[in-house]
Amino acid sequence: MIKNELFFLKEASEQEVENAYDALFKEMDSESIGYYILPESDMILKIEAFIDSYDFKAKGIKNIVVIGIGGSSLGTRAIDTLLSHTPQRNSRKLIFMENVDPVEIERNLKDLVYEESFFIMISKSGGTIETTSHVKYIIDRFDAPVDSERFRDHFAFITDEGSPLDAFGEKCDVPCFHIPQNVGGRFSVLSAVGLLPLTLLGYDTRALLAGAKVYKETFFAKQESALVQKAYYYARHSKDFPINVLFSYSSAFSAFNDWYVQLWGESLGKIDQTGASVGMTPVGIIGSIDQHSFLQLLIEGPKDKTVTMIKIKDFQKATAIPDVKLPQLEKTDFINTHTFNELINAQCDATMQSIKDQGINVDSIEIEKLDTYNVGYMIMYYEILTSLCGHFLGVNTYDQPGVELGKVILKEKFAK
Amino acid sequence: MIKNELFFLKEASEQEVENAYDALFKEMDSESIGYYILPESDMILKIEAFIDSYDFKAKGIKNIVVIGIGGSSLGTRAIDTLLSHTPQRNSRKLIFMENVDPVEIERNLKDLVYEESFFIMISKSGGTIETTSHVKYIIDRFDAPVDSERFRDHFAFITDEGSPLDAFGEKCDVPCFHIPQNVGGRFSVLSAVGLLPLTLLGYDTRALLAGAKVYKETFFAKQESALVQKAYYYARHSKDFPINVLFSYSSAFSAFNDWYVQLWGESLGKIDQTGASVGMTPVGIIGSIDQHSFLQLLIEGPKDKTVTMIKIKDFQKATAIPDVKLPQLEKTDFINTHTFNELINAQCDATMQSIKDQGINVDSIEIEKLDTYNVGYMIMYYEILTSLCGHFLGVNTYDQPGVELGKVILKEKFAK
Repeated sequence: MIKNELFFLKEASEQEVENAYDALFKEMDSESIGYYILPESDMILKIEAFIDSYDFKAKGIKNIVVIGIGGSSLGTRAIDTLLSHTPQRNSRKLIFMENVDPVEIERNLKDLVYEESFFIMISKSGGTIETTSHVKYIIDRFDAPVDSERFRDHFAFITDEGSPLDAFGEKCDVPCFHIPQNVGGRFSVLSAVGLLPLTLLGYDTRALLAGAKVYKETFFAKQESALVQKAYYYARHSKDFPINVLFSYSSAFSAFNDWYVQLWGESLGKIDQTGASVGMTPVGIIGSIDQHSFLQLLIEGPKDKTVTMIKIKDFQKATAIPDVKLPQLEKTDFINTHTFNELINAQCDATMQSIKDQGINVDSIEIEKLDTYNVGYMIMYYEILTSLCGHFLGVNTYDQPGVELGKVILKEKFAK
Repeated sequence: MIKNELFFLKEASEQEVENAYDALFKEMDSESIGYYILPESDMILKIEAFIDSYDFKAKGIKNIVVIGIGGSSLGTRAIDTLLSHTPQRNSRKLIFMENVDPVEIERNLKDLVYEESFFIMISKSGGTIETTSHVKYIIDRFDAPVDSERFRDHFAFITDEGSPLDAFGEKCDVPCFHIPQNVGGRFSVLSAVGLLPLTLLGYDTRALLAGAKVYKETFFAKQESALVQKAYYYARHSKDFPINVLFSYSSAFSAFNDWYVQLWGESLGKIDQTGASVGMTPVGIIGSIDQHSFLQLLIEGPKDKTVTMIKIKDFQKATAIPDVKLPQLEKTDFINTHTFNELINAQCDATMQSIKDQGINVDSIEIEKLDTYNVGYMIMYYEILTSLCGHFLGVNTYDQPGVELGKVILKEKFAK
């Protein structure tokens, strides 16, 4: 369903490939890293049971409001943006309370009817300042104090077991779903973090998990050596090619690009075992739009980038360019009667060719069609790719020590 | 109204600063480059006259559909996204037909009432394949052949004088506005390209031009040597710091970031006079969201980036975090009673401090408030900064030869 082809050298030895499989297997087997087994978790049963018992339809819930930032929102947004055109998607509105930008807050809440809204507060640590501030504001604005039924009935929490938010949920009798301790925020989209909102939006999240499970199993059956080679190449040449470009040919990928940027940047931008700063800068762009923006830099600029082209084989929409002639613009008629699906994919191929002609290292990913199964598969593909790169770079893929200092400075500013 | 402060060395000599001023003055004075004088053009008069005579209100136009890609759409989208919360903005819907993604096309047109829509077809060259394909599709879908009143009455074109699209407009009696030949697509937002849709959305585009004019005049009065120093530093150290990050603290900047990426990437990613591939990779991120995404890479990853922090001093919204206590989350109460405006700006300052502490070269831009005047000012700031970088890199800032090959390959694919 997803075909990945590398157009650069496979440099890792058999032993290095074997070691990489073993390293990730050990992470999974020792339970130090938990995202690998999310597809087999029984969380989906808990979520389905909760949704049944709550009876969202009878209560007239029209808005799903995710209050969370970073790993608490990017994955859900990515999947919903990829799939929002599919028939599964119900008509509920998905709203994200992420940034503390006051204009955005007002835009999000202006027309919101509290009674028709269900709020999902997500924070792994429990105390994210953006998220708690939003919740305080909502409580005040909609007159729903924490000990009221009005609050209890319209909120769920997602957090680590034993976190302050978990304790808050217990105290105020708010339903609380747990993120496994060994699953980091940016690897958490297949936990309750993504499953609760996405199931509420009508998506077949079981198929999402099934796709992820199949990719994981194929990988651990050691049938994905091309992926290992890709990670090896990226990591080994990270100084020559410090920028990895994800060039996706469909507007549906805009939020997936953001998810990838967090996953890649926050996992791999690290101080390695030798004390050196390593990592690669992720850049997500959209075709064909960015042929008119970023492509010039790719083609003629410094050769400091690798490029992954993503293409959707079948958009499942046969809309064609009609055989209409525009006076004086007859030179554009070569495209008439072809479908837009053909055009965008031909643009993808042509651009890939012109990038390869520059000697730039390219690989291509072709997705049969956008559905929950394939999206789950792709999520796991990128998560495992990230783990492999971390392995080859010699970093801790799963922490984020660099973001703590800013939080300390922020607190000091307000303590004054 | 906009304060720019550099926290890195000013390395350009007085002579080099002087030469840069002269080089740009020469571009303007010789009329080889036209964007400098767009703020003084009489295009705004023509547009206002057209809008008056067409009488959009009486005709019940509720949708402004911009059919264009790259430089034909990014600037308008940037400005509308920055200012859409301001009282000037009317309730017309702004729709962009950019990508040839068939799912996006359907989403854009699904509920569109042709009679309530005004279409602006924008293509500098006249023959952009995405744009002509969209127009053909609209003509067919809404049964509006090019020689009909139905077409004529709902379309305007924006293109170069004498282009095939200009000839099409003349032949079919469609109102046509010209982009000066010496203004490139990515520098065209202050031409009819931006002015027509933005004026139709209610914005005070005269103030937009006034802000741009003031910045231009200040610059050419040689009062912006900090800008020259910034460009010099970026260009001179483009191999050490090949990535320029624009870290804007407000969600309103999301589309501005895309505009900046095109302006920067396409202008500076070039083969220079010596035949070397030069340029810098632009990355646009949003605070505080990307503190939870890209910041880790900035802080601990390779020191290959410069960073510009953009901050809005006054969001003109006094929304505060109420004095609500969440059980078990009392450690977040330090922020209670402060405004969201204070919080996001304190986050900006704290993050900037933590980035500076890593020895990363930072500069800050503080905007008094988001209004048309300041946005015009900032547009001209970035355009001139780009020209200065091009000057110091020794490239032709204004062409884009690297994107032609893909177009040739595309045509060949369909010729087969």
